[in-house]
Amino acid sequence: MVINMQVFERIEALRNHMCSEGMDFYIIPSQDAHQSEYVAGYWRARAWFSGFIGSAGTLIVTADGAYLWVDGRYHIQAEQEVAGSGITLYKMGLPGVPKMDDWMKENIKPGHVVGCDGRMIGMQTGKSWEELLPEAKFVYQKDLAAKVWTDRPVLPVAPLFELAADVAGESRADKLARVRKHLNEKKAQYLMLASLDDVAWLTNLRGNDISHTPVFYSYMLVGLEKAWLFADEAKFSEEIKANLVNDGVELVSYDGLPNMLQKVEAGKVLLNDKRINMLLGASIPEDWKVEVELDITTKFKACKNETERKNIREAHVKDGAAIVKFLKWIEEAVQDADHPIDECDAADYLDARRKEMPGCFDLSFGTIAGYNANGASAHYSAKRGSCAVLKPEGMMVVDSGGQYYEGTTDITRTVVLGPVTEKMKKAYTLVLKGHLALGHAKFMEKTPGYYLDVLARGPLWQAGMDFRHGTGHGVGYVLSVHEGPQNIGRGNIAVDLEPGMLISNEPGYYAEGEFGVRIENLIMVKESEKTVDGQFLEFETMTMCPYDWKAIDETLLNEQEKIWIAEYHQQVFETLKPYLNTEEVAWLAKATRQ
Amino acid sequence: MVINMQVFERIEALRNHMCSEGMDFYIIPSQDAHQSEYVAGYWRARAWFSGFIGSAGTLIVTADGAYLWVDGRYHIQAEQEVAGSGITLYKMGLPGVPKMDDWMKENIKPGHVVGCDGRMIGMQTGKSWEELLPEAKFVYQKDLAAKVWTDRPVLPVAPLFELAADVAGESRADKLARVRKHLNEKKAQYLMLASLDDVAWLTNLRGNDISHTPVFYSYMLVGLEKAWLFADEAKFSEEIKANLVNDGVELVSYDGLPNMLQKVEAGKVLLNDKRINMLLGASIPEDWKVEVELDITTKFKACKNETERKNIREAHVKDGAAIVKFLKWIEEAVQDADHPIDECDAADYLDARRKEMPGCFDLSFGTIAGYNANGASAHYSAKRGSCAVLKPEGMMVVDSGGQYYEGTTDITRTVVLGPVTEKMKKAYTLVLKGHLALGHAKFMEKTPGYYLDVLARGPLWQAGMDFRHGTGHGVGYVLSVHEGPQNIGRGNIAVDLEPGMLISNEPGYYAEGEFGVRIENLIMVKESEKTVDGQFLEFETMTMCPYDWKAIDETLLNEQEKIWIAEYHQQVFETLKPYLNTEEVAWLAKATRQ
Repeated sequence: MVINMQVFERIEALRNHMCSEGMDFYIIPSQDAHQSEYVAGYWRARAWFSGFIGSAGTLIVTADGAYLWVDGRYHIQAEQEVAGSGITLYKMGLPGVPKMDDWMKENIKPGHVVGCDGRMIGMQTGKSWEELLPEAKFVYQKDLAAKVWTDRPVLPVAPLFELAADVAGESRADKLARVRKHLNEKKAQYLMLASLDDVAWLTNLRGNDISHTPVFYSYMLVGLEKAWLFADEAKFSEEIKANLVNDGVELVSYDGLPNMLQKVEAGKVLLNDKRINMLLGASIPEDWKVEVELDITTKFKACKNETERKNIREAHVKDGAAIVKFLKWIEEAVQDADHPIDECDAADYLDARRKEMPGCFDLSFGTIAGYNANGASAHYSAKRGSCAVLKPEGMMVVDSGGQYYEGTTDITRTVVLGPVTEKMKKAYTLVLKGHLALGHAKFMEKTPGYYLDVLARGPLWQAGMDFRHGTGHGVGYVLSVHEGPQNIGRGNIAVDLEPGMLISNEPGYYAEGEFGVRIENLIMVKESEKTVDGQFLEFETMTMCPYDWKAIDETLLNEQEKIWIAEYHQQVFETLKPYLNTEEVAWLAKATRQ
Repeated sequence: MVINMQVFERIEALRNHMCSEGMDFYIIPSQDAHQSEYVAGYWRARAWFSGFIGSAGTLIVTADGAYLWVDGRYHIQAEQEVAGSGITLYKMGLPGVPKMDDWMKENIKPGHVVGCDGRMIGMQTGKSWEELLPEAKFVYQKDLAAKVWTDRPVLPVAPLFELAADVAGESRADKLARVRKHLNEKKAQYLMLASLDDVAWLTNLRGNDISHTPVFYSYMLVGLEKAWLFADEAKFSEEIKANLVNDGVELVSYDGLPNMLQKVEAGKVLLNDKRINMLLGASIPEDWKVEVELDITTKFKACKNETERKNIREAHVKDGAAIVKFLKWIEEAVQDADHPIDECDAADYLDARRKEMPGCFDLSFGTIAGYNANGASAHYSAKRGSCAVLKPEGMMVVDSGGQYYEGTTDITRTVVLGPVTEKMKKAYTLVLKGHLALGHAKFMEKTPGYYLDVLARGPLWQAGMDFRHGTGHGVGYVLSVHEGPQNIGRGNIAVDLEPGMLISNEPGYYAEGEFGVRIENLIMVKESEKTVDGQFLEFETMTMCPYDWKAIDETLLNEQEKIWIAEYHQQVFETLKPYLNTEEVAWLAKATRQ
C-alpha cells in the first residue's frame, strides 16, 4: 500500500503542537463557527488534515493514533481518501464500530487534556462532552490548525448588499423591535445570534461568503436598546454602515463578541445552543443567566411577510420560465445523435437559462442532474468529464434552484427523455399522487409538518414502496435553500405549520441501479376557511412548471387527481406564457395539454 | 341559597383531623392507588367530601377554605353539585382561573405542611409538587378520609379466575421469564408494578374489583428468581394459590409492598412513575436505584399473541351477531308508535343481546346511546327516565362493547332511524371515508400511530370539518377497553405500531345541538408485504358489522371506497350468517347489499 505521506506529515506537525500545549487529544470537527450546512474553505481543517474531503466527519488525533468517524454517505469515499494515511476509519452505523462518544468515554481518562477549536462545535455538543467526561480537561481556545495549515484559505470578505424596503417588507428597526418585545416577554436583556441566516434576516443584509447562500460570517448581540453586529468591516459600504448606526446597530470586529460580553452589563441572554459555538458559550460570564430556546428570529423569518410572498411568487414565475426553456431544449437536444450531451451539459444549459433571468444572482445549490441509474442516488453529483451521456430513453431527475433578489427557489422535475418502462411510469405516478395529495391538503391550524407526511408517502406505501428522505424542507427568502424550523417528514419535528411558511413538497422513488423519480414544488402555507370547527390552513403552490404526462399512468389516477393536474397545468400555461417566445409557448401548450 | 350542610360538616370534620395532625393543606385527588381510569367506591373520597361526583377533579382543603378544580367536561355539573357547600370552584381552562400548580405556588408557604393520601397520586405528580414547593413539608402516609368517612365502601374482594392456556396463549412462567430477560438486559434486579392491567396480564389472572374491567387490586414486585404478588388472599382459590407457588410467586397482603422493600436485598428497580403511587415511591429505600420507564409488561401485552388474536376474532364474531340482532330490532321497534322506546331501552336491548352471547361475562363499558342532538356529545350518558325518546327519523350513535372470555370488544355504529338530512349524510360519508382510509392503510414498520391519523381526519378536513377526540385507542385482551401504549391521534405519542396491537378506528363528527356521527371498528396490526423498500404493516379489521347505506352519500365515494365497503359487507355477511336466525340473515343480506 502506498503511504499517504502528506496526511502523515500534517498530523505529525499537529502532534508537535499538541505536545507543546500539553494536549492528549485534539478533535477536528467539520462545522464552521455558526454550525452552517455549507462552510467556507477556511473551516475545512478536517479535510486538510485527513485527506477526506466529504462534508461531514470528525477526526480525533492522539499522540500515537488518528481516528475518523464518517456516516453512511461517506463509507466508500472516506476509505479511498484516507488509505495509507495511518488513520483508523470508523464507519458509523456498521456493527462493531464504536460511536464517537463511546470511544471518548473508553479512551479519555481523568486528567487528560482534550483540545478543540471551540468555534467548530456547538455549545450543546461541548456541554455533552463535558458531562460525558467530567474529569477530563477541555481546552476550546486553541486553534492548532492555524499553526500547521500554512495555505489555509482566508475568511471571505465579499461585499454586502442591503435589501430595499420593497424586497424585505419589514425594516431592520421593526425586526429589532419585534425581537425586543420577545426579550421583554421572556424577561431577558439579550439575544445572542450565531446562525448566519438569522443575522442576515434580522439586519436585512446579504453577503457572499458561502457559495449559493447569500450570508456573511457574523454574530449578533441584540440588547434592549442597542445591538452589536460582529463582522469584518471591509464588507460594509459607507451607506450600509450609516444605516446601521441609524438603527442603533454598532459594528464590531468578527471575533469581538466574547470581549463585548465582558464589557456590557450582565443579564439574561437567550440563545440556541445548537447554533452558538462552544467558544462563545464558554465566554459568557458566570453572572449571566442563559436560557436556551430556538432563536426567535428563526420563528419570525420562517413566516414570510406579504412583500416576501409576493416577491417569491415572482421569482417562481421567472424560475419556471427558465425550467420550461430547459425542458423544451433537452427534449430536442437528446434526439440529436450527432451532438451527444451528458448530465453536466444538461445542468450547464439549465444554469445558464436560470442565470439569464432578471434578478437571478446565483444558484441556490449546485444543480443535480441524474440520468436513469444515477437518478436513483438522491444526492447524486455528476462529475464533469465522466458523467452519464443522455440517450433518448428513460428519465433524468433534475433538482435545481436559483437565488433571485425576489426569493430563493428549489424545484425538481423528473424529465422523460424517451420511452419509459411500466415500472418507471408506476413510480412516477405514485410519487405524483402523493405530491398532489400533500399540495392540496387542507388542515387545521396547529398542525406540525410530520402529521401531513403520510399524505405524500401513502400512495407509495400502499404499493409497498417508499423513499428514504424527508418530504419537505423549509426554504429561506433570498437565503438558505434549507432553512427550518418547519419540515415535512417521518421524523417528529414538532413545529406547527403557519401562514407564510415556505416548504418543499418533494416525494420520490429510487430504484437502485435503474432510475429515480422526484417531483418537487415549493408550497406556501396560507389561511383557508374558518369554520365552526376551527381555522383551516392550506398550501399555495409557488413553483410553476408542468408535470410530465409521458411518465404518468393515467389508470392509477382518480378523477380528483386528474382535475388537480389539469387546473395546475392551466395555471402554469397562463402564468408563464408572457415570459416565453412563440416556440416555447407552443411547447408549453403541448406539455400542459389534457 | 340553600346551604349544603352535609359537605360543610364533612369538610369541618376533616379540618379537625388536619389540625391534630398539624396539616395546613389536605389534597384529595380522584385516582385510586394504581392510577386507574375507573376506580372502586373505596377511592371516591373526593366525591364524598365535595358532593361533586364526576370522575375527575381535585379538592384542596385548608383551615378556612376548600377549593375544587374540575376540567371542561364538568364545569356545569360541578357548579350544580357544590352549590351552597362553601367550596370555591375553579373551572380549569377558563380565563382568570388559576391552575392548581400556580395556586399551590401562591398559597403554600415555606414550612407549611401538606397532607395527601400518597396512594392516590402518581410518583411523578408527587415529585413535581416537591420540586414546585421545595420548602413545604409533604406528608403522604396519612389517609384522613379513613377517619371521617364512616360509611366508606370496603375494598372489593371478588374472586379471581385464571386464564387457561388456550385463552392466555402464554404461561405465567414464560411471561415472568420474558420480564426477567428484560431485567437482565437493563442490569436491574426488580420490576415494580402497580398498573392493574399489567399485573393481570403478567399473572394470567382476572378479577372483578372494578366494573367492566376484569382487574383486581394488587401490586407486584418481580425479582430475578422470585416474584411477590400483593393482593387480598380472600380473592384466591386454593388452586390458584398452588399454581402461583409453582411459578415462584409469593402471595403477600395488598398493603405489604413497602414492608417487603425493607426485607429484600437492595437493587435497581424499574418502574413507571406515572403508575406507581407516591406512597410506594417514597417507600423505596435510599440505597436502591430507580429507573423510570414504561413498564415492559405494557409493551409485551400490547402485542397480542397468536392465541389471543384467534380468540379476539371469535369474540368479535359473537359481538357482531349481537349488534346485528340489535340493529334489526331497533329498525322495527322505532316504527311502533304504540310502544315508544328511548335511548336507555335501546341500550338495555343491546346489552341483553350481548350478554346472551356465550363467553360474554360483562360489558366493557356502559353503553352509550345518543339520539340526534345527544349524539353530538362524544361522551354522552343517557339518564334513565329522562333520556330522549327515539323517533323514526335521524340518527343515533351507539358505542358499546363486551368482555368475553375470548377478548374485549368496542364498536360504534351510527344507526339511521328514519329520514336523514343531507348534512347528516355528508358527515356520515366523510367520517366513513376517513375510517376506510385508515383501516386499509399499509405502512412501513416503525411508524407511530399519530403518523396515520390524518388518513382518518383528512376527508373531514378537506371539507373544513373536524372532530375533537383521538381517532384510536389501544384495547386490552380480556382487560381494559382503553389500554395503551399504542394510540392514533393528533397528539404526539411516539409508540410505533407493531404486529398484534389492537386499536380502535373511530373518527366522528359532532354537529352541536343537531346530531353526531361516529364509526368505530377495532383493527389489529399485522405484517403485510416485505419489499426491497422494507417491511410493511397493515390492519386486520376485527369488528364484524355493516355500515349503514342509508346514511351514505354515494357521490362522495370513489371507486376504491365502494370496493372496500362491498368487500367488507360480503365478509360480514358470510362470517355472521351462522350465528343468526333466518329473519336476521334476511335483514343482514339487505343491510350488506350493494
